[in-house]
Amino acid sequence: MAEEAAVRAQAETVRRLKQDKADADEIAKEVAKLLEMKAQLGTDEGKQKFVLKTPKGTRDFGPKEMAIRERAFKAIISCFKRHGAEVIDTPVFELKETLTGKYGEDSKLIYDLKDQGGELLSLRYDLTVPFARYLAMNKITNIKRYHIAKVYRRDNPAMTRGRYREFYQCDFDIAGQFDPMIPDAECLKIVHEILSDLQLGDFVIKVNDRRILDGMFAVCGVPDSKFRTICSSVDKLDKVPWEEVRSEMVGEKGLSPEAADRIGEYVQLHGGLDLIEQLLQDPKLSQNKVAKEGLGDMKLLFEYLTLFGIAGKISFDLSLARGLDYYTGVIFEAVLLQQDNEHLEEPLSVGSVAGGGRYDGLVGMFDAKGRKVPCVGVSIGIERIFSILEQRLEASEEKIRTTETQVLVASAQKKLLEERLKLISELWDAGIKAEMLYKKNPKLLNQLQYCEETGIPLVAIVGEQELKDGVVKLRIVATREEVRPVARWGWLCDLSAQLKPA
Amino acid sequence: MAEEAAVRAQAETVRRLKQDKADADEIAKEVAKLLEMKAQLGTDEGKQKFVLKTPKGTRDFGPKEMAIRERAFKAIISCFKRHGAEVIDTPVFELKETLTGKYGEDSKLIYDLKDQGGELLSLRYDLTVPFARYLAMNKITNIKRYHIAKVYRRDNPAMTRGRYREFYQCDFDIAGQFDPMIPDAECLKIVHEILSDLQLGDFVIKVNDRRILDGMFAVCGVPDSKFRTICSSVDKLDKVPWEEVRSEMVGEKGLSPEAADRIGEYVQLHGGLDLIEQLLQDPKLSQNKVAKEGLGDMKLLFEYLTLFGIAGKISFDLSLARGLDYYTGVIFEAVLLQQDNEHLEEPLSVGSVAGGGRYDGLVGMFDAKGRKVPCVGVSIGIERIFSILEQRLEASEEKIRTTETQVLVASAQKKLLEERLKLISELWDAGIKAEMLYKKNPKLLNQLQYCEETGIPLVAIVGEQELKDGVVKLRIVATREEVRPVARWGWLCDLSAQLKPA
Repeated sequence: MAEEAAVRAQAETVRRLKQDKADADEIAKEVAKLLEMKAQLGTDEGKQKFVLKTPKGTRDFGPKEMAIRERAFKAIISCFKRHGAEVIDTPVFELKETLTGKYGEDSKLIYDLKDQGGELLSLRYDLTVPFARYLAMNKITNIKRYHIAKVYRRDNPAMTRGRYREFYQCDFDIAGQFDPMIPDAECLKIVHEILSDLQLGDFVIKVNDRRILDGMFAVCGVPDSKFRTICSSVDKLDKVPWEEVRSEMVGEKGLSPEAADRIGEYVQLHGGLDLIEQLLQDPKLSQNKVAKEGLGDMKLLFEYLTLFGIAGKISFDLSLARGLDYYTGVIFEAVLLQQDNEHLEEPLSVGSVAGGGRYDGLVGMFDAKGRKVPCVGVSIGIERIFSILEQRLEASEEKIRTTETQVLVASAQKKLLEERLKLISELWDAGIKAEMLYKKNPKLLNQLQYCEETGIPLVAIVGEQELKDGVVKLRIVATREEVRPVARWGWLCDLSAQLKPA
Repeated sequence: MAEEAAVRAQAETVRRLKQDKADADEIAKEVAKLLEMKAQLGTDEGKQKFVLKTPKGTRDFGPKEMAIRERAFKAIISCFKRHGAEVIDTPVFELKETLTGKYGEDSKLIYDLKDQGGELLSLRYDLTVPFARYLAMNKITNIKRYHIAKVYRRDNPAMTRGRYREFYQCDFDIAGQFDPMIPDAECLKIVHEILSDLQLGDFVIKVNDRRILDGMFAVCGVPDSKFRTICSSVDKLDKVPWEEVRSEMVGEKGLSPEAADRIGEYVQLHGGLDLIEQLLQDPKLSQNKVAKEGLGDMKLLFEYLTLFGIAGKISFDLSLARGLDYYTGVIFEAVLLQQDNEHLEEPLSVGSVAGGGRYDGLVGMFDAKGRKVPCVGVSIGIERIFSILEQRLEASEEKIRTTETQVLVASAQKKLLEERLKLISELWDAGIKAEMLYKKNPKLLNQLQYCEETGIPLVAIVGEQELKDGVVKLRIVATREEVRPVARWGWLCDLSAQLKPA
């Protein structure tokens, strides 16, 4: 056990050093950029005083990044739809008071809007609280929905690790009073499907239950008033070793060393059905009512996960705590396992890529009569997934297309703009994706090069001879093979036939 | 002419009365809501002090609205892709200074974020300025891209007319130094394709040119210093009659009555190639250099639009001014024409549904050396289009599905949860969209009702007998027709075959 802890601690140290290096690299890049800007300003003073950048912790998505992003979204959305989810959207900002008291210590990370008269507003911090507000406002007691949108946190960005101040969340939630653990199991199935589909490598989904944590704290002798703060210490166990967490509990938070040590024994445990059975027999824990409830449900959950065929990827892990205040039952988090990625320059430590849990009290906080709507949901941490996909693409030879253009309408000689305009208009009207160069007299070579650069597979060429003969030439760009001149009056049919296999 | 003006003025009065009524209805609704809330608070004091709503001028999109929204987006995106556009995305907020000095008087409508330390930020007001910032920052001189995202304006919302403080823009822009009017013509073609595709009824696209406007002001005797403010008066002509605009020019803005009357003669003109030819011969306008340039390009534009076969829907309209400061050349706006929509309860006055123009100087404002990147683009005003589509759907009998679920996995008797979980898991893994009720022992009737309510076409039923026989029953919900019991081991093939036609 001690040996394992030492190995863990060492692995942790290595991981952190790598992170520090990544951060340092990022800072160096930023400094270089700033120096460059300063140099520019120096030479051209008065022209432009401001810095040309996106706000801290945000970024633009160029065409290439968007192509990757849309691939990932497609996989995620098709999974959510496969599970019968509807989709909703809410405003990017909420009344400030809607967010108040939902995020505990993290509330300081909320972006407020300036008071410009009228309502006080804040940017949404996640999609869960707006969802709960939506349910309460519309008196909806039963829905399965997904929501993909950006959320905002004034956190310290670590962009090389895919952590931003503006980032996407992809949420799937099931609201309603149902038989225990059936929707909860479906949420885990969804995480499993998405991570498998995106081929991100090996992963494990850690599961715990807020009730088991609370029961554990109680039997370890943590006073009720310290549950939350001790819980947030435990939450750090995926980033820092136990010794540090322990000293925070005892030193900063005033927990007795004995209580801390008792917690230390529990939070090292992880396993499956066997561990659940063991804890159900645990002389202390089995005496605690909420812990017992949590363990009973955990057992049920594992039974369902076994039926889904995914129990092998799920780890019941007593160190999983998750920071958010609103969880009341099952909580979970999916982490990618470090792998030897030979084709990546340096392995990314991406950590958590999905998380979620049950929050049965949140909707009630918005209801005038406190009516509860039990909810369970999952959030896919898509930015980290983007980072991996981007890095992988960069390392690979794959050339990603950023347009879907099927045909370039080109001319072989000068003074054929009118003819090109007529031809391309026919293509657009027939639903064919087509481009032309915005020049009156482009060179044929330039037009062909444009096809090669952007991956347009087919070029339709009109020249003086073709005009006379009433034909259009079709050429396959990759092979330079001439299809054959097709009659001008029926060329759309020929062209459509040509495009079919593509 | 006088008669026409009188008819116009009368039509305007009717339209405005209708708008006032719509506004009054909206206010009445809001008041009713507030009273209801107050009543709730009274009976349950202390429980919930805050108002449960979205911020002023914003709204949630529920599943039904999202289904409509996605239909519209699909049509728009496929048009943008048909024209070979790449896609980009930028952050929802920009450095405050990025937006400064780009919107003239409208700058007061920008949402600022609270100064919480660090950079001063503002929510984006449109997608054009972030696009220009993106080009300058990345030194891109050549791109055709679309961008669909929400923008923010602290305007007075008129939500019944589809005007919000948070709303989507769907922008398509072409940046680069090209031969005149070819990209400009494509932008108009795009508007034409999208409005036709969405079947929003008859429309006209008004076109003008900032240079023609400036030339017109000059020859009418407007002092240089008053160009902008007089331009913004002209911009109101689509909402208020000429007499009002004239009195604003003369009264508030101190223009001489003679100059105003001269403007009045020009801004009543609209037409096509004939009008362009007429103005090219106009003794005063033809002497003005910028006006002549603008008219020459306008002629070229109409030639290209004729080749595209859409000149009939385009109106060269000297009253079109458009407020934004950054336009430098062609400007345009698409308006839906009022129609007798018998199936609509009251006709919507939706006005402009798309607009755009050329802005050759904007990117240069961000470049340290002032290097220009000529741009032209179009923005689709999707919220107004949503309003129409929503209202139309409501009036129609069509029942819109909000999920895509293909199969419900149901049980005929109790104690078959395990079997259902196994079956549904197989479906999901095979990529089939499937749902089940989250109950241990749901009644068959309830399961079938759920299919009917949500439009699930097929139900897979397992019962004790089926379990014994090793089969699954498939039933078509609409016809209640039993397909036949299919063997459990090969049921996925049978089911897939059954789903094909759907």
